[in-house]
Formats: sequence, structure tokens, C-alpha cells
Amino acid sequence: MAGMNPPSRRLAQQIDFIVAVDRLKQVFRQTRLIDDQRRENDAEHSWHLALMAVVLQEYATDEIDISRVLAMHLIHDLVEIDAGDTFAYDDAGQADREERERAAAERIFGLLPADQRASMLALWEEFEARETADARYAAALDRLHPVLLNYHTDGGAWRRHGVRQARVVAVNRHMEEGAPELWEFARRLIDDAVAEGKLKS
Amino acid sequence: MAGMNPPSRRLAQQIDFIVAVDRLKQVFRQTRLIDDQRRENDAEHSWHLALMAVVLQEYATDEIDISRVLAMHLIHDLVEIDAGDTFAYDDAGQADREERERAAAERIFGLLPADQRASMLALWEEFEARETADARYAAALDRLHPVLLNYHTDGGAWRRHGVRQARVVAVNRHMEEGAPELWEFARRLIDDAVAEGKLKS
Repeated sequence: MAGMNPPSRRLAQQIDFIVAVDRLKQVFRQTRLIDDQRRENDAEHSWHLALMAVVLQEYATDEIDISRVLAMHLIHDLVEIDAGDTFAYDDAGQADREERERAAAERIFGLLPADQRASMLALWEEFEARETADARYAAALDRLHPVLLNYHTDGGAWRRHGVRQARVVAVNRHMEEGAPELWEFARRLIDDAVAEGKLKS
Repeated sequence: MAGMNPPSRRLAQQIDFIVAVDRLKQVFRQTRLIDDQRRENDAEHSWHLALMAVVLQEYATDEIDISRVLAMHLIHDLVEIDAGDTFAYDDAGQADREERERAAAERIFGLLPADQRASMLALWEEFEARETADARYAAALDRLHPVLLNYHTDGGAWRRHGVRQARVVAVNRHMEEGAPELWEFARRLIDDAVAEGKLKS
């Protein structure tokens, strides 16, 4: 197109970020799809979570700003592009997770213009800290999602990794802070999983 | 857990919907991942779009409600679980797309409690109609995303289907209504694609 201006440096940085995060579609999790044997990737997980946040927002403990919760869900796993997915029941992996993810956050959010780099980093840190109503609700769904998927894939990752009921309850219990009725629902699903032989007691 | 109440009918319906839409991860599009040969699925596309909406919101023509835009992106392709993905350049497929998608919307959103069924249907219709600021911005990104992916996969679906520049411009031109600077950027990318042999003029 004659006379068209080149994109601003700001837009070029934003597009570089958008292109770079395409890699999230190649970070695979321990959970499997409900009607398929293949593992779920982080992009699919992030979409599913965000949709859950819309549908289930009436169960949040405190008043939430849904746009902030959704933004948290959309970005919460971007660090795994560099740091990889750390299975929730992998104690060794959890030990150095924070360090690995911090370096990843600096690189990935660092692709953005400075103001957006700062706001995205802050949002990711808020999600990780679970100290605000938005973060507690967002994190509750991030726990409910794999429970739901493991239950609906015959025990899925629980079974393959020999995880037991008490561990599942311990790791997911913080769901109660952000969405108590959803924790009650998850607790029941965990009990059902034991009764149905999908999870060891 | 002794004394635990069964989930309410409302929550059971919401969870049924969440479990059913897992299938979106198995609806494949014509676009490919940037660093991989496999086709992208609708769940990944929806996540990527929604993240783009957050990062690029300063380019929206009018003031938008980002939470509504994100909800549109998260649900906009759910109808394709039943109706399948219709390639933007498939005229025959586009002809009966509306009818197929309408039936799908009734079934899928119909899994939700009545109030949410109505609000989700209305949001999907708003997105499709592109008559509000939120829908125009949301739809602009839904066009920008495959342009970006096709450009970064050596012409991708354009090349495989022999689509020409004039068609790409015609199909994507409405991007200008929702985000004129992004359309200018896309227009340039389309020209670059022609110059680089990724798209036929």
C-alpha cells in the first residue's frame, strides 16, 4: 500500500510478544483431554480456565474484577514457555520452580513495551502470591481444572503418578479461600474418584 | 466428606457445560503453529485471541469493555464443536455456516442454566453481528490472528488453498472498523507476504 507508515516501535514490540507466546501451544501438561488420549497444552488449559472464570464467577468468595481474573488466566502460564510445566505433585520440581519461572517472566514479559512489561509482571506476581480476591479466585480455578480433568479421564495424572487422596486434598485445599463452594464440589469429586477406583485413598 | 451437600442443580449444569466444551481442543483450523507443523485448534486460537485483546486494547476504535471482549473471544468458536471450523475463504462452507452454527449454539449454550444460556447466546450473536464497539474490536482480532499466523508460517493456509491477495484483503478489510491501526499493520503484512512469495498477488 503506497504511503503506508511502518508500524511504530511500540506495536512492533507488542506483535513480537504475540508471536513469541505462540510457543505456549507446545508446552504440555500432565492432564489429558477428556475425549482423547493426548496431553493438554498450556494454551488450551489457559483458555479453559478463563472460560470457567466467566461461568463460575458467582462462586468467588469476594467481589472480583473479572477482567483482571481473565488477564491473569491468559498470562499465568507464559513463564512455562521457558521454565516448562512443573507437575503440582512433583516436589523436586516445585523446589526450584520459582527461580526458573522468575527468569522466564523477565524474558517473556520483557518483549513488551516497558509499561506493559511492568503491568504484566505485576499481574503474574499477584496471581502467584494469592493475596488479593482476584488472585485467590483465579488460583482456585487453576486447581479445580486439573481435578475435573483427572476425574473425567479415569484418574488421569493421579493414577499414572500414583498420587494419593491426602496429597490431592493438601495440594488443592487453597481452593477454599477463593471459592468455597467450588472446593466443596472438588472435595466431593475427589471422594467419588476414590470410591470409583480412580484415586488411591 | 461426611455431611457434604450434593452440588446444586445450577452448579451441576455449569460443570456439565465446562466438561462438554473440552471438545473445542479437538476442532482443528487451517492455520498452523508458528514453530510446528501441526494445525492449531480452536481452544488455542481462542486463548491467543483473548491475550491479543488484552495487549492491543489501545488500538480499539471506540472505548471498549475488555471483560466483554474477552468473554466473546472465549466463547466465539464453541459452536464449531458441532458445526466444525469453516475456512474463511471457503464460499460453499460459508453459505450454510449460519444455520449450522445457530443449531450448535442452541445445544451448547443450552447446557447452562437459563440465565447464562441467554446471556451467552446474546454475547455470541453480538460478536457475529459486529454492530457494537466491543464486537467490532473482538472481530478485528479474530481476523488479525490468522493473518499473523499465515505470514509466520510461510504463507500457511493461503498457500495451501491458493488464496490470492485481493481475497485476503476483501475478507479481512472489516478489521479497519474495529482497529484501524491494526488493519494498517495487517495490510502491510499482506503486502510483505506477496513480496516474499508467501501469497499470490
